[in-house]
Formats: sequence, structure tokens, C-alpha cells
Amino acid sequence: MKKIYNLDRIFNPRSVAVVGASRQEGSVGYGILKNLVAGSTFPAKHLTPFPGKIYAVNPNASEILGIKCYPSLKDISDKIDLAIIAVPAKIVPTVVKDCVDKKVGGLIIISAGFAEVKEGRALQEDVVRILKGTEIPMIGPNCLGVIRPSAKLNASFAPSMPLKGNVAFVSQSGALVDSIIDWAIEDHYGFSIVISYGNKAIIDSADLLDWLKNDVSSKAIALYIESISNGQKFMKIAKSVSKIKPIVALKGGVTSEGTKAASSHTGALSTDSRLYEAAFKQCGIIQTDSIEDLLDIAEALANQPPCKENGIAIITNGGGAGVLCADKCEQLGIKLSELSERAIKILEASGKMHPAYSRRNPLDIVGDALPERYEIAIRTLIQEPDIYGIIVIQTLQTMTNPIEDAKIVINIHKNNPDKPIICVYMGGKYSKESRYLLEQNGIPDYNDLTKAARAMHALIKRGQLLKNRLA
Amino acid sequence: MKKIYNLDRIFNPRSVAVVGASRQEGSVGYGILKNLVAGSTFPAKHLTPFPGKIYAVNPNASEILGIKCYPSLKDISDKIDLAIIAVPAKIVPTVVKDCVDKKVGGLIIISAGFAEVKEGRALQEDVVRILKGTEIPMIGPNCLGVIRPSAKLNASFAPSMPLKGNVAFVSQSGALVDSIIDWAIEDHYGFSIVISYGNKAIIDSADLLDWLKNDVSSKAIALYIESISNGQKFMKIAKSVSKIKPIVALKGGVTSEGTKAASSHTGALSTDSRLYEAAFKQCGIIQTDSIEDLLDIAEALANQPPCKENGIAIITNGGGAGVLCADKCEQLGIKLSELSERAIKILEASGKMHPAYSRRNPLDIVGDALPERYEIAIRTLIQEPDIYGIIVIQTLQTMTNPIEDAKIVINIHKNNPDKPIICVYMGGKYSKESRYLLEQNGIPDYNDLTKAARAMHALIKRGQLLKNRLA
Repeated sequence: MKKIYNLDRIFNPRSVAVVGASRQEGSVGYGILKNLVAGSTFPAKHLTPFPGKIYAVNPNASEILGIKCYPSLKDISDKIDLAIIAVPAKIVPTVVKDCVDKKVGGLIIISAGFAEVKEGRALQEDVVRILKGTEIPMIGPNCLGVIRPSAKLNASFAPSMPLKGNVAFVSQSGALVDSIIDWAIEDHYGFSIVISYGNKAIIDSADLLDWLKNDVSSKAIALYIESISNGQKFMKIAKSVSKIKPIVALKGGVTSEGTKAASSHTGALSTDSRLYEAAFKQCGIIQTDSIEDLLDIAEALANQPPCKENGIAIITNGGGAGVLCADKCEQLGIKLSELSERAIKILEASGKMHPAYSRRNPLDIVGDALPERYEIAIRTLIQEPDIYGIIVIQTLQTMTNPIEDAKIVINIHKNNPDKPIICVYMGGKYSKESRYLLEQNGIPDYNDLTKAARAMHALIKRGQLLKNRLA
Repeated sequence: MKKIYNLDRIFNPRSVAVVGASRQEGSVGYGILKNLVAGSTFPAKHLTPFPGKIYAVNPNASEILGIKCYPSLKDISDKIDLAIIAVPAKIVPTVVKDCVDKKVGGLIIISAGFAEVKEGRALQEDVVRILKGTEIPMIGPNCLGVIRPSAKLNASFAPSMPLKGNVAFVSQSGALVDSIIDWAIEDHYGFSIVISYGNKAIIDSADLLDWLKNDVSSKAIALYIESISNGQKFMKIAKSVSKIKPIVALKGGVTSEGTKAASSHTGALSTDSRLYEAAFKQCGIIQTDSIEDLLDIAEALANQPPCKENGIAIITNGGGAGVLCADKCEQLGIKLSELSERAIKILEASGKMHPAYSRRNPLDIVGDALPERYEIAIRTLIQEPDIYGIIVIQTLQTMTNPIEDAKIVINIHKNNPDKPIICVYMGGKYSKESRYLLEQNGIPDYNDLTKAARAMHALIKRGQLLKNRLA
């Protein structure tokens, strides 16, 4: 069992030094410093400067972006919690020695040119050797860095700061992170933390899971993994973490083509995908098979309670959408509960149902449904003892009122926090605002029936997992 | 074999009458008239009034939205190509008689309350009986109508007009159409025509396919179907159409839950899904299993050439994205061609490759790839005899130039129109413009690796189909 490092000074630093800060726009060393000073390299609506102390190390400059430059780490008199290293690979060992002498709290080595290329393997071994006797944790090398929106910490060269949220995203691939952050900004998706951990020479995914276990701002963990080096350690930690909070994982390299590509990508051997599948299952990790699913499912798990039993209801104002959603549910093994006589009686008595409403699950409340009809339907079904979760579908008709329909769901969820609700407010231009409103209030909305069914499926799996653990 | 109707006067009308035009905002009869007068009911950037003649029938009004009202159809002296009916169900037979007397070119019955509800079955039979001896085609009842952006014809109560494009969307469900149009507007997705055909009392999906066969503006057909009443007719027509242009279909009600829901939705019995699967395959129809796939794949088939053989290349600037895409390709049965020595030589000789580039398929040209590196990679691989299609992935790095990278793809595709290119420019905020640019130029971009692989898979299937047909 490898030792567990204390990562607090990396993730909650009071002082950060950028070694290799650069004046050259577009360079990594410039990007990182800019991200600390302003939150992002790309133009952003709001500046989010890191509120702690920022130091720059560059022997050839006196000042960059308003930050005084020091010739070396050792010239800084203050204590340094986090040192971010962005110098050429061959200079990295020297800088790491300085970090050890300076007793920094932790390192992120951004620089590439280590074990991912043949010529860099020895260099990576050097770095590991220098740090070996110490308790200083190091993330990287060959990574993008760490971003913590709630702490206004962009310790990376990802050019934007995503919104604050409650999903922790941990990725072995750095390039994916950039794209995902850009997508997340457009989609109003928030993160508690984003960690690109690269070659994992010292800190690996298990260490990160261990730290995230106690991070209250992270309600679910999304993991992109190509390989795990220490399987025993990973499983032990993952098992203990998934008791506390859900973990969703995407494994890159599950086919022979993918495996070959992964090997050329990180040099890591990703063995038989069935091994990973079995291991994930044993640890209580929910496995997905695309980036979209990884993030969609993490969002549902972070924001909604688990579905206690396998039995849900679908409420829709569009027959076709109900049919397609029922298809997806059955394909995934989700059971649609039968509507009780009690429920039908309440719906009938309301006097608000359309004569052609379906009287069964999926409950089709018909295209002309106004908010009050949605309200009666959802309120009635969420109180049914055999219904443990609800998918609410809204197709966009002329009389549909997406915002009011969203407020109803938000309100009912507040009063019934133990049963998950997933929404599919279909459309684009005219349903957008309602989707944001739902998501701001913790109700995942997918605008996609398949995604909604998959998210509900994950909530059911999570419910089963917790039940088995308690049993 | 049922007779084939001539639908030209419905889809290319010179004069349209709205029977049941209403002054009441929010009503169906108001919405349809507004859509003819202005193109959409919801506020739109540009008004697109129908350029032909518009007539309104309402015995209790003299004028609505600037259009003179007639007490009945028979009071209009002009010839009527298309009559759109939006009166209460029980009055519909009388109006249909008027249509027959008036010798209108065709009807769309929007009104609901027919075979989809028990009480309306007899009414629907009445309507069919009245039209039986005539050659007047009728779409509906219980449908949303027809929209043809290129003709500025919004003969429906769908509140918005989508962009002009080359995908024909034919849907048995009306509610789905509204949501899809709203999504399409937001996503810049265009349609040649959108047809909601409801209860298909006379005109069914086969008749529509038959008309679309010769519609030059429709390059691919996307079909949402819950049931087919005349299987023999459908298969005969679909077979002949799919020789000319690709058809993609989504069948609602493929599981027992979905089937039960479909039966309560349109009253139609959707039999065993395997029957449909086999029938679709035999007709050369590509079946998908979600709305998103239906439209994504139709877009690829409408805009890109078929992939002549099963052998493609992936070009990426992100290793992880390449790994995930290779996984998806293998799972779908897409073969990744081996890179030839010739290709590697050209790449090396360019002097533009990063030392760590992958030298294999997926071709990882590394995160710092500038447009010129993309250009060399795509140009070299598209000329390889064993590569029949390319997926170009771009993760968003600080130095990435999405717009220039898009221009390169557009340009190379122009000079190599026989090999399909599918793009995945990942991200959101900063990659959006490049994705629109690609799509405006006929290069599908999915921002999603799974979707791109599925689209390429459909292009390979289309290639195989055409080859088998020619053999």
C-alpha cells in the first residue's frame, strides 16, 4: 500500500508560485499566471482573481501581469503552499529540488516530455526520486492542472473558469478537460473541482478520490481513466469513497483499437476492459461509456437523491415522447410502476385532465396541458407508495408554459426531497430558460429522453448499492 | 395496393384557405393563420409571410390578422389548392364535403378527436367515406400540419419556422415536431420539409415517402413512426425511395412498455419490433434508437457522400478523445485503416509534426496543433487509397484555432467530395462559431464522439447498401 499524501495545501492554498511564468502571450507559463491573476486567459464576463498570494518565478523578468518576478523559488521569503511548474522538462528536476528545499506544500508539474515519451522516462524517475523521501505531494507531470471555482483558484492552463457546482471531475486526459470546461460554460454546468492528473507519477486517481471523499463541496465524482497502476489501492479507496458519495467513471481504451490508441497516448497499458468493469462494479462505481453520459449522470447523482426502489413514473404532455421514454426505460431495465386506483381517482376528481389523457404510466396529460395539470399529475404521483422517482417530459406546444412548469417541479421537489425527479423539457430556443431554472435548482434537465432514462437508471443503481451496503 | 395521391397542391400550393381561422390568440385556428401571414406565431427575427394567396373561413368574423374572412369555403371564388381545417371534430365532415364540392387540391385536417379517441372513430370513418370517391389527398386528422421553409409555407400550428435545409422530417407524432423545431432553431439545423401526418386516415408515411422521392430539396428523409398500416405498400415504396435517397427511421414502441404507451397514444397496434427491424433493413432504411440520432444521422446522410468501404481514419489533437472515438468505432464495427508508410513519410517530411505525434490511426497530432498541422494531416490521409472517410476531432487548447481549422476541412472536402468527413470540434462557448461554419458548409459537426462515430457508421452502411444494389 502506497502512502496517502495530504493534498490540502494543493487544493486550499493560501500562496501559489508559478515557476516558469512567462511574458509571452499564448505560452503555458503566461496562461497559468493569467489564470491566477484573472481567473481565465480567454476574455471572461467576470474576473475571478485568486484571493491568496501569487508569486512568479522567472530569472529574466522583473514583473509579469503586475506580479513581481523572483529569480528562483528560494528567493521568495514567504511560505509557499502550491508550486506550479511550467519550465522545460529537463529543468524540472532542479526546480523540484528547490521545492523540497523550500518545503512547499505541494506541486503541480504542468510540463510535458516525461514518461509519455520514451526520452522522458528517466527524467520522470529523477523527479520521483527527489520527492521520494519527502511528504510533498505532486500532481502530474504532463497535466493541465487544477481548477476550483469556489476558491477562485485556476491553477492550470485551461483558458476558462467554469461555474461553481457540486461535481468533481478528475481526468487522466488534459485535452478533454479544456473542451469540457468550454462546453460546461455554454451549458451552465458547474464543477466543485476539476483535476487533470496526467502521468500520475506520484498522486494517482486513488489519492484524489481519497481527498474528494471529505470535500463537502463535491457531491459526486466523475472520473476519466485510461489506466490504473495500483489496482489494490484504487479498489480499497474507491470502495470506501463510494459509500459516502457516488463515483461515475468512463474508461478510455475498452476495445482493442482504443487500447492501442491509449497505449500510444499515455504509455500506460490498459488491460482487459472486463477487468475494469468487474473492478468498478465491485467498488460501487457506476461505469458510463461516453463523456456526455459521464457528466450527465454525475449531475443527476450530485443533485438528486437515489431512487430507493426500481419503480418510476413518466409524466408527459406528448404521446410520442412518452412512448420513446418508455422504450428506453425498458431497455435499461427500469420498471414503470402501475398507477393505483387511488391516483386515477385523484386525477379524475381534479376535473383538470383532458378526456383523452392516458390513465396509465406513462401518464400522458395531453398536449394542451397547462401548468396546473402538470402540478396535479406530479403531486399525485410523487405521493404514490409504489413510485420512487419521476421523469417529467414537456414537449413544447403553443400553450406550454415552460417557466411555470419548471417552478412547479422545483416546488414539489422541495417538499418531496427523497424521491428523484429528472426533467426532459424538450426544445431549444423557447425552453432554454426553463432548463436553466431547473438546473439552478438542482433538477437535472436533459432535453433528451435517452439521457434522462440513463440518469434515472443511475439513481436506481445508486439506491440499490446503498441498500446492499446497509443490508 | 392503395392508390397513390398527387400531393403537389398540398406541398406547393398557390392558394391556402384556413377553415376555422380564429381571432383568439393562443388558439389553433389563430396560430395557423398567423403562421401563414407571418411564418411563425412566436416572435421571430425575420417575418416569412407565405407568398401565395391566403384565405380565412370564419362565419363570425369579417377579418382576422388583415385577412378577409369568408362565411364558408364555397364563398371563395378563387381556386383553392390547400385547405387547412381546424374546426371542432364534429363539424369536420361538413367542411370536408365543402372541400369536395369546391374541388380543393388537398386537405390538412389539424383537428383532433378522431380515431385516437374511442368516440371519434366513427367521425374519422365519415371523413374517409366522403373523400373516398375523389382524388383529393388528406393529411391528418389529429396532426400538426406541414412546414416548408424554402417555400415560406408554415401550414401548421407549430409556432416557429425552422431554417431551410435538406433533411425531410416526417413524424407520426405532432408534439415531437414542435420541440424538434424549437431545438433546430437553436442548433441551426435546417429542414427541407416537416410533415406531421397524425392519424394517417388517407395519406400515410408511404405516400409521403413517394412524394419526397422526387423532391430535389430533400436529400435525406428522417421518419418517426409508431405503426405502419399497409406493410406491403410501405415496403415497396420505401425500397424504391431508398435507392434514390437515404431514409433513417425511429420506431416508437419497440419494447412492451413502449408498445403499450403507443397503443394508448395513437390507437395503433405496433407489433413486434423485430418485424419492423427486419422490414426496415430489407427496404434499405437505417434504423436509429433516439430522436437525436435520427436527426444527427439524417444530417450526415443528407450532406456527406456515403463511405465507399469500411475503413476510416481518426485525426485528433487530443489523445483521450482519440482513444474514446476508437473505442466507439470498434464497438460499432467501424474499421480503422492502417496508416501506410507513404502517409507517415509525408507527415514526417512536412517538418510540422510534434515529436510525440502518434504515427498511427487514430492520428494524434498533439495538443499544440496549429491549423497547418491539421491541414497536412487531413490532406495526406484523405488521399490514402485505404482510407474512405475521416473523423476530425479538435479538443480546445489555448493555441487551437477552431475557425481556421474549420476552413481547412471545408476546403479539403470541396476538393475531395467523394470521401466523407465528420467533425467533432469539442467545446461550447469558443468552438460554437466554428461548428456553425462547418455545418453551413455541409460538414456535420457533433461535439460528441459517440454521435460522430454513429454518423460515420451510417455513411458506411449507406455505402454498402448502394454497392449491393449496384451489384
